Amino acid sequence: MKEFELIKHYFSKQSVARKDVVLGIGDDCALIQPAERQHIAITTDTLVAGVHFPLNTSARAIGHKVVAVSLSDLAAMGAEPAWVSLAITLPTIDEAWAADFSAGVFELCEFYNLQLIGGDTTQGPLSITVTAQGYTPTEKYLTRSGAKVGDWLYVTGEIGDAALALKYIQGSVAIDDIHRASIQTKLDFPKPRVLVGQVLRDYATAAIDVSDGLAADLHHICEASNVGVNLVLDNLPLSIALRESIPVMEAYQLALTGGDDYELLFTVSDDNKVAMETALANTGVNITCIGQLNSSNKIKTLLNGESVCLDIQGYEHFSVEA
Amino acid sequence: MKEFELIKHYFSKQSVARKDVVLGIGDDCALIQPAERQHIAITTDTLVAGVHFPLNTSARAIGHKVVAVSLSDLAAMGAEPAWVSLAITLPTIDEAWAADFSAGVFELCEFYNLQLIGGDTTQGPLSITVTAQGYTPTEKYLTRSGAKVGDWLYVTGEIGDAALALKYIQGSVAIDDIHRASIQTKLDFPKPRVLVGQVLRDYATAAIDVSDGLAADLHHICEASNVGVNLVLDNLPLSIALRESIPVMEAYQLALTGGDDYELLFTVSDDNKVAMETALANTGVNITCIGQLNSSNKIKTLLNGESVCLDIQGYEHFSVEA
Repeated sequence: MKEFELIKHYFSKQSVARKDVVLGIGDDCALIQPAERQHIAITTDTLVAGVHFPLNTSARAIGHKVVAVSLSDLAAMGAEPAWVSLAITLPTIDEAWAADFSAGVFELCEFYNLQLIGGDTTQGPLSITVTAQGYTPTEKYLTRSGAKVGDWLYVTGEIGDAALALKYIQGSVAIDDIHRASIQTKLDFPKPRVLVGQVLRDYATAAIDVSDGLAADLHHICEASNVGVNLVLDNLPLSIALRESIPVMEAYQLALTGGDDYELLFTVSDDNKVAMETALANTGVNITCIGQLNSSNKIKTLLNGESVCLDIQGYEHFSVEA
Repeated sequence: MKEFELIKHYFSKQSVARKDVVLGIGDDCALIQPAERQHIAITTDTLVAGVHFPLNTSARAIGHKVVAVSLSDLAAMGAEPAWVSLAITLPTIDEAWAADFSAGVFELCEFYNLQLIGGDTTQGPLSITVTAQGYTPTEKYLTRSGAKVGDWLYVTGEIGDAALALKYIQGSVAIDDIHRASIQTKLDFPKPRVLVGQVLRDYATAAIDVSDGLAADLHHICEASNVGVNLVLDNLPLSIALRESIPVMEAYQLALTGGDDYELLFTVSDDNKVAMETALANTGVNITCIGQLNSSNKIKTLLNGESVCLDIQGYEHFSVEA
């Protein structure tokens, strides 16, 4: 089976057909007629097998994850998803793999009205690059740089489960049977917080998605906004699975450094705190206040009101000794 | 050196700063404020080391080529380049490589006012995925599907040199000293026909860029437009290097199947032929009429007015036996 046939066969069956797509897959470029008076948000991510997901990850999970990772970046800007391009590098063509992978991709695309508008299929070691685009209203979008001293720091959902699942796969931790499925799902099928991001456009001062580990991503907000933070470890939203699987200090450590959570970390002024909490209650996504910003330019971790020292170097995909 | 520092260091030095870029590299997404009443053309390509370029290709050439390949797709739609995202997968971080690679990227970006707005850097076997975007006027762009019976078929520049260079690198052909540099340049530093594409918006009925081999790309036009063609081999624009390096029938064969030319193949009605030739004369790019479309739905190759049979299966990057 040739390259073009593979693409046509598995990626021509999408049900999403947006009105702003003038020309979809099949020519040298796709053509878009963007809505007027909107910004376009654009994000690109590469996921490499064995680096960003375990080698034995199912094709459907990989398909889900590559789209979810990009949607999570759009969510962090408060953007509404619109179009996606998918560049797939595969060692060999495997029809079952392609069918499952495209199913994983299209599940999310259909849910978010995200249209696949192009891409490329090439031969090589398994890796996938996704470019996703979406709309934000002009002058109404989220960045990392708007946080102010006194703002409250929040995170959606629970953090640390994906990292725990990875540790389990690597054999460095034992997990009770009752928790195994839930943490594996967190790793394989992350839920991008797309709706939360759009609601937060009206309330948050800054936002980022938690992909590299909460500490590293919090550091990005602090650096971009020129603030510091008192981070209350007691408040960190850890799952029961995480609390029951490893000692609590290790759980904090993992939650802060693990990565792959794809939750939103955001800041809100004291004035907007209640209104934001009310608005987000309608989304059905839990949020937790985990700290308050200050002018220290540092991340200080507190437990029972006292300063504790954790090694919270962010997760780096790519680290080479000098 | 960490991922983020690498990105910041080598890719923060671009001189292009477009007015329609609201937010460039550095947040979860870039933000664009697109011009009104324009379409946006979007193209994604992956280049894998050892598949799409020889393993010993210079970093600067790789940087040039990944951008040129995308610009060539934009040119084939008649689009004006605007923004580019770059996902780089590297086995190890090599500062000299990154410096040379980014120089290759920025040379083309600066020439075409193309702003780098984001991307990703990951660890793995060398491959690069580029998503480039540009503008076309609404209702005034080129596709593969508009060619009509009776239209003339043209190609820009010369074809076959990149394929010849690849054969030389692979050791399957000898090349005279005087020709080596020119064909190597054709392979490593292709010139996307961006300006030609924009001029052709007013004249051409269909266009495609020659990336997979002239025959394969011509086949795409014929299929999309539901036409056939008499292709006049005598007229194929072959370089002196190609003509002097291999027998003429092999040269035709290579020109039709080699790929990597990044010339434009386009069709124009008899009525617009002269006006198009006049308009393109101002671009300084040579064009050659190589055939005329008919209703046969087949590509027929002619030499000295007689039908000849060549094996013109298109170049497929990804071909696996069933």
